[in-house]
Amino acid sequence: MPTINDIAARLGVSKSTVSKALNNANDVSESLKKRIIETAVEIGYTKNRIRKDSTKKLCIIIENMDYENPTGFGYEIVIGFKQLAVPAGWEVDVVPMTEKFQKTISYDMFMLENKYQGAFILGFSLIDPWMEDLKSSNTPTVLYDNYIPENPKVAYVGVNNDEGFNIAIAYLKSLGHKTIGYLGGSLESHITISRYNAYIHAMENNGFCVDKDLIGCSYFISECTQKYLPVLLKKRATAILCSHDSLANAAMIHCAELKYNVPEDISIIGFDDAPFSAYTMPGLTTIRQDRNALGRCGYYALSSLFNKTSISSLLLRAEFIERGSTGRAKSIPENID
Amino acid sequence: MPTINDIAARLGVSKSTVSKALNNANDVSESLKKRIIETAVEIGYTKNRIRKDSTKKLCIIIENMDYENPTGFGYEIVIGFKQLAVPAGWEVDVVPMTEKFQKTISYDMFMLENKYQGAFILGFSLIDPWMEDLKSSNTPTVLYDNYIPENPKVAYVGVNNDEGFNIAIAYLKSLGHKTIGYLGGSLESHITISRYNAYIHAMENNGFCVDKDLIGCSYFISECTQKYLPVLLKKRATAILCSHDSLANAAMIHCAELKYNVPEDISIIGFDDAPFSAYTMPGLTTIRQDRNALGRCGYYALSSLFNKTSISSLLLRAEFIERGSTGRAKSIPENID
Repeated sequence: MPTINDIAARLGVSKSTVSKALNNANDVSESLKKRIIETAVEIGYTKNRIRKDSTKKLCIIIENMDYENPTGFGYEIVIGFKQLAVPAGWEVDVVPMTEKFQKTISYDMFMLENKYQGAFILGFSLIDPWMEDLKSSNTPTVLYDNYIPENPKVAYVGVNNDEGFNIAIAYLKSLGHKTIGYLGGSLESHITISRYNAYIHAMENNGFCVDKDLIGCSYFISECTQKYLPVLLKKRATAILCSHDSLANAAMIHCAELKYNVPEDISIIGFDDAPFSAYTMPGLTTIRQDRNALGRCGYYALSSLFNKTSISSLLLRAEFIERGSTGRAKSIPENID
Repeated sequence: MPTINDIAARLGVSKSTVSKALNNANDVSESLKKRIIETAVEIGYTKNRIRKDSTKKLCIIIENMDYENPTGFGYEIVIGFKQLAVPAGWEVDVVPMTEKFQKTISYDMFMLENKYQGAFILGFSLIDPWMEDLKSSNTPTVLYDNYIPENPKVAYVGVNNDEGFNIAIAYLKSLGHKTIGYLGGSLESHITISRYNAYIHAMENNGFCVDKDLIGCSYFISECTQKYLPVLLKKRATAILCSHDSLANAAMIHCAELKYNVPEDISIIGFDDAPFSAYTMPGLTTIRQDRNALGRCGYYALSSLFNKTSISSLLLRAEFIERGSTGRAKSIPENID
């Protein structure tokens, strides 16, 4: 196992300088400190040795997600995580993140410099620079709704999307719906791909043919509803599943603009049960992610990784929430276009 | 919430009789005790009330799996589970199970009568009678390698089969293999279906076409190798993935009988890393299930269920173990049959 001596030899500095730098002493220049820490990471000098103080620190890294007040999607996730981590003696920092910042420092280096022993990451997309770093990172990390193949130090927590859409489509089928469309985000993130596939599987499971003309995916919500909603309505869809509640809400508003009544003319189902979803007009039928439970699972998974239990994925049950945006299928005469 | 009074009224007996029966007193007949317990379950009288003593009891229910000595597949799973459960104050019983016994009593009734608050179930097949009971059971239960849809009280733990076969096929591809067959158990259990699908996905992921003639599935190991191995060899397979190590070992023995050398003529890969797999001739290349970690995950999942965190599935990383049963692909001249 590499020692302080190895770092000193590599950089041609004294052992005491290395020791001081790793203890963040003031009499070592910032640039030298940085080189010493980089070298420590490079040769695999373990973080436990660097951390002379006994503080146990974790971080929740958040991007593209509100968490600071109860209407934010991340709020309850952060609380759930802390509810288990803090009593277990961990200090937990919440770190807002940007793509730009990720380009300035590698993930492991960031964790090392800030003395974080593990992280729970929310809201990353596939193009975030640290997603590449995570493929080979040695730092125990749990990702919400993102999957890194084969790295035993990184786990994935989320909700069972297949089960969620399966329940939703079985429910629509029981209400007489046969032509069920799908609106989703563009297939550039783990979660939009996973929900798109979940829709396909759930349709097949329930004995429906998948019609590509009944599917529309776009990065921007407004583009998605403007471009595809009229197509789905023209194709006589009586129900639409959406990959996220915010998209479902936009679809409901756009339906009203097009003089379609929800749920009399068309049923709309979202996914997430976002904090606003009980208060849309009508209330949105959706598939619930228990956000507090997701936070707790994030901590469960992270503590498993600390205990050399390499979890690959931990999925929560999806819970179906019926509200006003769904109803019996409208019978559409065959000869109307 | 139902009370002792409700049970007493339903059966026309006194409240004290009900109370005595639920506390297993000797002065209530066994038949009346049974009726009282059945009624308690039927009307949803909670187990916490019945359990006046403070013993916290869990059980590991095992079928079709050796666990009593270190060469048994279940041995380390049981140890892993107990390593977490016992320090947390649980008494853990290991209960060998048969299909016949399951027909004599419902699952919830069995758990209630024995005062078990939760169970970890190993080795069940889809036809076990209690699999039906588990669809609506209210008892927190974790199943190893079996999945019950939609019941929030039941979770599934296992290993990531997709990832396991994906690593195995990428490895074979790197050794020049192109014609890769599959031998598996009959598609009557969750795990054999899941591994069959994992083989299909992994072949496609690695750019190979799936040839149905290169796939053989049977309930009996000997039938599987006798019937399908000669077919796969005739079709010039240079490597075979097997759904389980025991099947892979049988395939290696049968290859020797047919004068095929492993790995010179054909590479064989198993799944599980069973205790015997390091000692086959040659040693078996396989995908490891960390059995101790599986046991620990069983406990993690069960304690999540107790904490109202409805886990759907918890999958461990698969670990690739390279031994002597795999090597470079033999180049087979096109004109030999």
